[in-house]
Amino acid sequence: MQVAIGIYEGFTALDIVGPYQVFSNVPGTEVILCADHTGIVKDDAGILRFDVEHTFADVPNPEILLVGGGLVTRKLAVPGVPIVEWIRAAHPTTRHTTSVCTGSLLLGAAGVLDGLKATSHWIAYDQLRMHGAEPTEERVVWEGKVVTGAGVSAGIDLALHMVAELHGEEVAQAVQLGLEYDPQPPFDSGAPSKAPAPIKALVEAVMADAEARAMATG
Amino acid sequence: MQVAIGIYEGFTALDIVGPYQVFSNVPGTEVILCADHTGIVKDDAGILRFDVEHTFADVPNPEILLVGGGLVTRKLAVPGVPIVEWIRAAHPTTRHTTSVCTGSLLLGAAGVLDGLKATSHWIAYDQLRMHGAEPTEERVVWEGKVVTGAGVSAGIDLALHMVAELHGEEVAQAVQLGLEYDPQPPFDSGAPSKAPAPIKALVEAVMADAEARAMATG
Repeated sequence: MQVAIGIYEGFTALDIVGPYQVFSNVPGTEVILCADHTGIVKDDAGILRFDVEHTFADVPNPEILLVGGGLVTRKLAVPGVPIVEWIRAAHPTTRHTTSVCTGSLLLGAAGVLDGLKATSHWIAYDQLRMHGAEPTEERVVWEGKVVTGAGVSAGIDLALHMVAELHGEEVAQAVQLGLEYDPQPPFDSGAPSKAPAPIKALVEAVMADAEARAMATG
Repeated sequence: MQVAIGIYEGFTALDIVGPYQVFSNVPGTEVILCADHTGIVKDDAGILRFDVEHTFADVPNPEILLVGGGLVTRKLAVPGVPIVEWIRAAHPTTRHTTSVCTGSLLLGAAGVLDGLKATSHWIAYDQLRMHGAEPTEERVVWEGKVVTGAGVSAGIDLALHMVAELHGEEVAQAVQLGLEYDPQPPFDSGAPSKAPAPIKALVEAVMADAEARAMATG
């Protein structure tokens, strides 16, 4: 099975490394990292520099297509942007078209989410709606062959659920144990409906500022 | 605050990208990725290629030193290996010396864990003991300034616990919400004491095989 993970300048690393680590541990699975050009693609902090060996043109028909989010996805989520056109062209032949975080805005721009329930990072629900999707706070959302995950860390859950569906519960349990994924977060503040209101307001302000800077320079 | 994350050929990506994503979202924190050479360092699957801009020599006195695990750590965990010598030299002046997964074997080889309770990926408890540590299945283990985390995905929990300790609960809650870390794994099989015995045996066999191949070629 071929899993193609598409990235772009300013991607959020954990969005795609979570599901990458899950899928790359499934026997018989080929994971390919791709972008609109080969060579260095930097993450949103500019600290992680991924040397990419494949372009979107190298993987026109992946069985699983996955894109993650980033602070620049609102700007990228328009027709004509390479990753959007890759999704649009590949989607009809995928087994699953999937996203983590605001990667769902890219699926939306490619026309994949029209009329579907979907999720994204909670901060982008309104933008998701503008692409014709019906936003939901569920962590992993299945709509036919389209699977969207919530923000950043949700990619690990999304990928494990997909492995269970595609390869059976035993394989998914083995991968989960291999990654020792027995999460013990320090607080129960990881979803907008669970976090204290002042914390949510703080994150909204910090992320709006970070997005504005990323949109200006990216 | 400076956080230095040391990697090496054959590192497991999620081990370090989890805590990287947490620390890089803390205001005022400088995260530096380093290795024994600049340029490309590949992960254990050879698919992710990180272009590293700093060597260990560039960050001799990090406040937080963090190393992750990989299939080759048993081979690397000996005196004279660059990452081990970097840990040994930096440890006396760190605020925290930390590891995720079998990165703790590297701390052990640097003499950091002698007589301390510590953890690692569950498959390496015996190897951890050979470095003078007392292995435990706890997910995040604090012993003075030394903090060790369990396998792979535990780095997210480790980093959030550290941010809460270093910067307060509000900052940690904000980062947790920013990463939408509200984990919902499909099974309760992520720890060796929780997984069904046949699943554990399967993972032990697969990982022993993968380690043997990595040790032969790495």
